[in-house]
Amino acid sequence: MRFSQAFIPTLKEDPADAELVSHRLMTRAGMLRKHAAGIYSLLPMGWRAASNVMRIVREELDREGAQELSLPILMPSELWKESGRWEKYGKELFRQRDRHDRDYALGPTHEEAVVDLVRSHVRSYRDLPLNLYQIGVKFRDEVRPRFGLMRAREFLMKDGYSFHADDSSLEEGYEAMRRAYTAIFRRCGLSFVVVEADSGAIGGDVNHEFMVTAESGESEVFSSACGYAASAESAKFALPPSPHEPEAPMAERETPGKKTVDEVAAFLGVTSDRLLKTLVFWAGGDPVLAVVPGDRELNEAKLSRYLGGAPVRLATAAEIEQLTGGPVGFTGPVGLESRIRTLWDPSVQDGKNWVAGGNKKDVHLVNLRIGRDVKATERADIATARRGDRCPRCGDELQVSRGIEVGHIFKLGVRYSDPMGARYLDPSGAEKTITMGTYGIGITRTVAAVIEQSHDENGIIWPMPIAPFHVHVLPVNQKHDASRETAEKIAGDLEKRGLAVLYDDRDERPGTKFKDADLLGMPLRVTVGERGLADGIVELRDRKTGGVEKVPVGEAVETIAKRVEAAGGDN
Amino acid sequence: MRFSQAFIPTLKEDPADAELVSHRLMTRAGMLRKHAAGIYSLLPMGWRAASNVMRIVREELDREGAQELSLPILMPSELWKESGRWEKYGKELFRQRDRHDRDYALGPTHEEAVVDLVRSHVRSYRDLPLNLYQIGVKFRDEVRPRFGLMRAREFLMKDGYSFHADDSSLEEGYEAMRRAYTAIFRRCGLSFVVVEADSGAIGGDVNHEFMVTAESGESEVFSSACGYAASAESAKFALPPSPHEPEAPMAERETPGKKTVDEVAAFLGVTSDRLLKTLVFWAGGDPVLAVVPGDRELNEAKLSRYLGGAPVRLATAAEIEQLTGGPVGFTGPVGLESRIRTLWDPSVQDGKNWVAGGNKKDVHLVNLRIGRDVKATERADIATARRGDRCPRCGDELQVSRGIEVGHIFKLGVRYSDPMGARYLDPSGAEKTITMGTYGIGITRTVAAVIEQSHDENGIIWPMPIAPFHVHVLPVNQKHDASRETAEKIAGDLEKRGLAVLYDDRDERPGTKFKDADLLGMPLRVTVGERGLADGIVELRDRKTGGVEKVPVGEAVETIAKRVEAAGGDN
Repeated sequence: MRFSQAFIPTLKEDPADAELVSHRLMTRAGMLRKHAAGIYSLLPMGWRAASNVMRIVREELDREGAQELSLPILMPSELWKESGRWEKYGKELFRQRDRHDRDYALGPTHEEAVVDLVRSHVRSYRDLPLNLYQIGVKFRDEVRPRFGLMRAREFLMKDGYSFHADDSSLEEGYEAMRRAYTAIFRRCGLSFVVVEADSGAIGGDVNHEFMVTAESGESEVFSSACGYAASAESAKFALPPSPHEPEAPMAERETPGKKTVDEVAAFLGVTSDRLLKTLVFWAGGDPVLAVVPGDRELNEAKLSRYLGGAPVRLATAAEIEQLTGGPVGFTGPVGLESRIRTLWDPSVQDGKNWVAGGNKKDVHLVNLRIGRDVKATERADIATARRGDRCPRCGDELQVSRGIEVGHIFKLGVRYSDPMGARYLDPSGAEKTITMGTYGIGITRTVAAVIEQSHDENGIIWPMPIAPFHVHVLPVNQKHDASRETAEKIAGDLEKRGLAVLYDDRDERPGTKFKDADLLGMPLRVTVGERGLADGIVELRDRKTGGVEKVPVGEAVETIAKRVEAAGGDN
Repeated sequence: MRFSQAFIPTLKEDPADAELVSHRLMTRAGMLRKHAAGIYSLLPMGWRAASNVMRIVREELDREGAQELSLPILMPSELWKESGRWEKYGKELFRQRDRHDRDYALGPTHEEAVVDLVRSHVRSYRDLPLNLYQIGVKFRDEVRPRFGLMRAREFLMKDGYSFHADDSSLEEGYEAMRRAYTAIFRRCGLSFVVVEADSGAIGGDVNHEFMVTAESGESEVFSSACGYAASAESAKFALPPSPHEPEAPMAERETPGKKTVDEVAAFLGVTSDRLLKTLVFWAGGDPVLAVVPGDRELNEAKLSRYLGGAPVRLATAAEIEQLTGGPVGFTGPVGLESRIRTLWDPSVQDGKNWVAGGNKKDVHLVNLRIGRDVKATERADIATARRGDRCPRCGDELQVSRGIEVGHIFKLGVRYSDPMGARYLDPSGAEKTITMGTYGIGITRTVAAVIEQSHDENGIIWPMPIAPFHVHVLPVNQKHDASRETAEKIAGDLEKRGLAVLYDDRDERPGTKFKDADLLGMPLRVTVGERGLADGIVELRDRKTGGVEKVPVGEAVETIAKRVEAAGGDN
């Protein structure tokens, strides 16, 4: 493609609202254009990169036997009511009403549509397993869209769904997707960790996130050299045994007006890790007490998962007073545990003298002992891991890094198939519920993640397999006949070999052309200059290493083609 | 792909609501599934066919220098207000409100978004021409969605837009798209006519429709052996010279209660072609009289285009009485032409004695002569062509057929670029408005149109280039070891050569397998049977001709690969 005819509107200035490198570079490189908050056009360069990601996704999924299809964007609300998501999804769901006043969800994911399909066509165990996927535009009405393609309201996603007769088949299908995802992100040139997250309450509810490590990532990742990796919402941590302190009788203490952990600790002259933080939540229609040490944060995601996935919310001051008898800031488990379901994080250990709220205004309890003053029967992993915590597997200190979630695989189980009645007949003729997996890849987000990981101060550095063009051919002086003709010949010959070539035929100053080449970031640049040609050579520059190699004109095409192939640039 | 693992839920029964062959066959062949009126999933077989159409579209457009991108589905209402379409589009536009109460159009076409893009990046004539396209989901809230993919509310479309400095560049770009479209629909194996439509009023407003000829088409097409072809909304027709009749003085006649053409003609004892049908319209804020012969229909599409594209509506009885002085059914041009703009179809010829309304209750005028009693200065092509009319180019009788519109190319001119301010600087530094073309292809509709044209009583007959699979390999008896092994070997070897193969490995009765093969309609079927194998042969069947050829087992793969290539089955 000739640069002069390509729609690559590069910008000299950084966009004002770009907080992330990827957003800034994609805008400056003429790949991306914003129309409204979280709503973008992908310009031809951006589309080419995204198309390469989609090609890789298709190849790897098809290899594992997945079948592509196309589910509607507009999904009848009736289907969403069957799954319960119409009510649950809240404001992030775009809802559309048609001229006959029927309601539709603008698909953020398509479990309902695909289950609707499968329940009406799958009859027998012989029709299973199935793995169906699509690549298409998804919608999410984010409160605060930002970071360009990272958190958009309209974005390209691959969503896939697998259907199985039993757990072992689901396990196989899940492993196939883990293999495919690993291959996909490797081919995209990404460094990533596969982050594990499981919760005790729902049997099959295992899931893994594929996190691209990047400073700018929205998510925290805890990982260890042993291979353990988990997101902040699900990371576990090992605790050293708690030192056994001499027992003392539990006693009330006046703590006038001291409500926060820090206030109480300072007033009583103890460290905050002595305190029990006791929070009152509503989960469904029931109150729940959640107890963690005063120096730890409660993890609402863990809590919700532990409670079966229901949304949880903190009780109001009035509700707390009514439930506990005391005002906010003075809640503690003593006396309540028998009346209200109480969850104890394992980091609340025996052997220690704890401080807790007394459920009375201006009163705390000291020297509270687990087992003696409270039972602490229901233990649940509900605290957030923090820097310095140790790996639950190997005991080494956990590394904390940041990551961008580009893929997610999830053992759904029967969460949709049961309420929506997706069943099959097993070999004995008995009716069973289909069990499911769900698998997503953010296509546009993956493109952005690549740039977050692969750039320098001058611009993007594309990995070969997803580069919009494999090669950037740059004659230094377009008006110099031999340069122009040689460049055109090389570009043409490379295209004949099936390579994607950007040929900078613009009559611009060399500085502008070199700057644009660095900004756009094709993996290989061929520079055709007067001086080089006099010696019969062109320069081949590796965008990543900056290394320059002089290649005889006659060998340029062959050398480049081999390089592209070696670097995984298929077509 | 193994049939036993593929998601091809064929049906034995026709769907109840399928009026069209394509809808019926796609549903029965497990290609399509309805979720709501006009809202479908494309199942894997349907997706494969649509993907082939998309591949061909991309190849042919890229060859002409068009560049693919991706415009958002959600388009801010502000943009649509700039173009005026937010008000004009009416109920067919899905409108979406976000959580911050901002409004968006769910794109039916994307002129606004692409003009928004181009106006902010194109500065100079050097940035032009540009041809940008996308393939994606479009939305239209049809009053009465039907015919499966033919008239859906959510559908796949290629929409493209070209941008030019002047009319001659637009002309070149337009011709390039005409070439590309012709190549695309030929490669899809379609018989089609390119139907012309131009209107006098708007200079550049030329457009052509690509109509697939099919009995089930929604549109009427008028065509002639000379190459002229036009849709019913725009077909012109030649008239023989009108016989000159002896002049007689214009006179009033009592026509008590005779209002319709037929009533008046019968009462006066004349044929309906003597009458002038005079209709009163509102166009914008002004009344317009439209005059056509009594035996012809007025064409509202032509009228609207002639009047610059504004919507037109028939005046009410009260308005007619107020404007003309007479009641409905007695309107005529005499005495009104000087007060109300009056358009005369060319088929209202001189030399004839006409009958017209007298603009008085129960009165008509007879022996009205053009030039003597009325001026008929503003001539406009506003009558609908009909069976028996003659070609405006060659004079032969026009052929009337039915067609499915699969593509549309349109010289837009400055209809969007002017109100939206898309301008450029010409070589002299003067600011000019960009002129545009717009080009659409219904992807899913093209798939359906192929089936309308290419099927028999047993099922679909895919043209090779868009067949979901090139070859259907069918062992008659899956339990016969030699049959199964030979079939598997042939299928595997064909796949290694890059062919798409559906291998029917199901343990079903031969009748079921053959029936499914005919229904699914792959162009080539390889039948592997016990008797044939005993003679060392397999049978190669052409789905279209039904012709069967015995091929030695060892030559089967080579023979098939050549056949597929010859029939345009690339991969």
